[in-house]
Amino acid sequence: MKIVILCLFVSALCWGQTDECRPSSLNIPGAPYPCVHPDRSVTFRVSAPDAQKVQVRLGGAHDMTKGSDGLWMATIPPQVVGFHYYSLVIDGATVADPATRTFFGSGWDNSGIEIPEPASDAAYYSAKDVPHGQVAQRWYYSKVTGKWRRCYVYTPSEYEAKSGGKYPVLYLLHGWGENEQGWHTQGHVDLIMDNLIAEKRAKPMIVVMDNLNAVAPGADASLYAARGIIAHASMAEVAPAGGRGAPAAAGRGGFPTNWGTVFTDMMFTDLVPMIERTYRVAPGRENRAMAGLSMGGMQSFLTVLGNLDKFAYLGGFSGSSGGRGGFDPKTSNNGVFADAAAFNKKMKVLFLGIGSVEGPGTKNFSEALTTAGVHNVYFESPGTAHDWLTWRRCLNDFAPRLFK
Amino acid sequence: MKIVILCLFVSALCWGQTDECRPSSLNIPGAPYPCVHPDRSVTFRVSAPDAQKVQVRLGGAHDMTKGSDGLWMATIPPQVVGFHYYSLVIDGATVADPATRTFFGSGWDNSGIEIPEPASDAAYYSAKDVPHGQVAQRWYYSKVTGKWRRCYVYTPSEYEAKSGGKYPVLYLLHGWGENEQGWHTQGHVDLIMDNLIAEKRAKPMIVVMDNLNAVAPGADASLYAARGIIAHASMAEVAPAGGRGAPAAAGRGGFPTNWGTVFTDMMFTDLVPMIERTYRVAPGRENRAMAGLSMGGMQSFLTVLGNLDKFAYLGGFSGSSGGRGGFDPKTSNNGVFADAAAFNKKMKVLFLGIGSVEGPGTKNFSEALTTAGVHNVYFESPGTAHDWLTWRRCLNDFAPRLFK
Repeated sequence: MKIVILCLFVSALCWGQTDECRPSSLNIPGAPYPCVHPDRSVTFRVSAPDAQKVQVRLGGAHDMTKGSDGLWMATIPPQVVGFHYYSLVIDGATVADPATRTFFGSGWDNSGIEIPEPASDAAYYSAKDVPHGQVAQRWYYSKVTGKWRRCYVYTPSEYEAKSGGKYPVLYLLHGWGENEQGWHTQGHVDLIMDNLIAEKRAKPMIVVMDNLNAVAPGADASLYAARGIIAHASMAEVAPAGGRGAPAAAGRGGFPTNWGTVFTDMMFTDLVPMIERTYRVAPGRENRAMAGLSMGGMQSFLTVLGNLDKFAYLGGFSGSSGGRGGFDPKTSNNGVFADAAAFNKKMKVLFLGIGSVEGPGTKNFSEALTTAGVHNVYFESPGTAHDWLTWRRCLNDFAPRLFK
Repeated sequence: MKIVILCLFVSALCWGQTDECRPSSLNIPGAPYPCVHPDRSVTFRVSAPDAQKVQVRLGGAHDMTKGSDGLWMATIPPQVVGFHYYSLVIDGATVADPATRTFFGSGWDNSGIEIPEPASDAAYYSAKDVPHGQVAQRWYYSKVTGKWRRCYVYTPSEYEAKSGGKYPVLYLLHGWGENEQGWHTQGHVDLIMDNLIAEKRAKPMIVVMDNLNAVAPGADASLYAARGIIAHASMAEVAPAGGRGAPAAAGRGGFPTNWGTVFTDMMFTDLVPMIERTYRVAPGRENRAMAGLSMGGMQSFLTVLGNLDKFAYLGGFSGSSGGRGGFDPKTSNNGVFADAAAFNKKMKVLFLGIGSVEGPGTKNFSEALTTAGVHNVYFESPGTAHDWLTWRRCLNDFAPRLFK
């Protein structure tokens, strides 16, 4: 309740005391809807003149009402600040809202809306008059998967300006149902890093954003399903003979036991060598970090805790290897935490971030680690949920701790 | 007719004589539909259990048929090879197909399908085992528009590998209703350039892809409308008081007379200086080229023909300043062609490309230029229309002619 009141107060200031409904920053150019009211309620609109029932799905499902002009509208209750995926349901068809840019989440290109924070809170991921790095799209061939893969690589402004110099690397992963585009579209990784580096809060570093989905040739595609890249309702069926073989069901649970090992293998066989061949990379484990959000956090824990000779920094943003109970410092993660002193010596930063409304699991895990003598940083993002604003804040807190 | 027969023959070879319907390469992972049959007919499918009428719009509108499972399907006639935008109409709502990745065209994120060519024809824009450059996303502030802008910059593989060396620059524009993402998503600019450079057919160069939309602060937003970035049906209305001010109508015709001058001003004031400050750019007009497709071709002609002191190469892909009749070499384009010998001395390559099914306008323009003594290259892409396969082929023919 306190949070809601604060939000109302701040947003009233921000909106200049009017009740103007502002178009979301993610709308296509010129689209007046969806728009966000000063109290963070949101009005949606879509043209569907012959439809019987239209809903907007953001959190729950909200019925829209048809006007005489064939335009359906709905105003939904105040939303948490940050980026949210949403979709429309038009006579049973789940589709993206044509009024917004789309974002790859839950395995398809659905709609996104940004519920704005006060400008001062959003400053760290806003474009400012500071030197700007770049995010590069790069294709490479993976021997492990037998396929061409795409990753995105952030290089800081000075990387090009200086012809020499070597840089440490952070490998940074998206979450379930997302892909390698998430961090530079939903996450604003480039603006966050540009601002941190300009303020000398973070060391200039390279950030590599890959796709956490990696399947060995011929492996069961259910691995993909478990990883959330076949999630849209239209897809959750058996493909016809000769089709690509979509599995019968897809869900967040029931990961195959080997779900992360192919990625780890691909990373060390294909990705890291390509990066170190292509960029001016500082050598050694103390110049290599890995982090990820949600399932990407789980992947990061799996990869790093099994390869402490290769990494000195590890971050889990709303996802790690613990927090679900059953953690035993002596045996969990193949006993990597059993000798806390040895672990602490190797791991320079073990970071656990979470949104305050996501539940106590990550905090419990952090406390269990601390009790076991394992040094770790616990970061809690106030008032945010399991979505991108939590993860932008995690990165903003994590990156300054690296490579010092 | 000859073309259709040839296509049938080649695709039968390509598909291994089966009647398998292959998922489009642009589908979201795991989606079996849309799929392309050996004869290049296409089957679409969408789940819309409560809809009364569903159509797919690709070229014309095609009715879909509802099955007992609530899935609507349609198989539409054989399509021309290449990339096509399409959309679904569900009870009157025009939306993207949730089964494909989306692509910004006609001013919104709609669906795309790739009707494959024989692999040998598509080789020049396919990923191969050659050195790969990168496409970088870069933010910069424009003094002319008073806004942050985003461009994408291709740098060849050797740009990073060598710490010295300066490179010529091609400025390359998208078309009406598209944006700065078009060339590296729909256009495969990086793969085309990687392959040309690896075969030593093109000189290593930097390619800058910006957004051709540029509006001065406070200028009438109808400029945006004319440029096709407010095109979706839901948007073509007057915004409510306090909204972003969408104009009453949007269309391809009726460009304001100053439609391209703000972009030109922005380019010389903001974009080119940023590029030349940031990258190792070879100096002078003989190291600078500009080209674009459709409206981007019109913009390129406007910018370059008015600034021959700054460019030595110009390309129009399905778009230029002529071809609509009324061309007079003595007076058109402010008389830049009046002294053909002087023009030929300055312009090292004037390139006019077009798809063979787009009509004779560009060929007529080329011939009128030739008759007037103006050297030019006419390139015709066989069997393709006003879409991205024509423009990939144009780039593949144009780039090897540059900076020699």
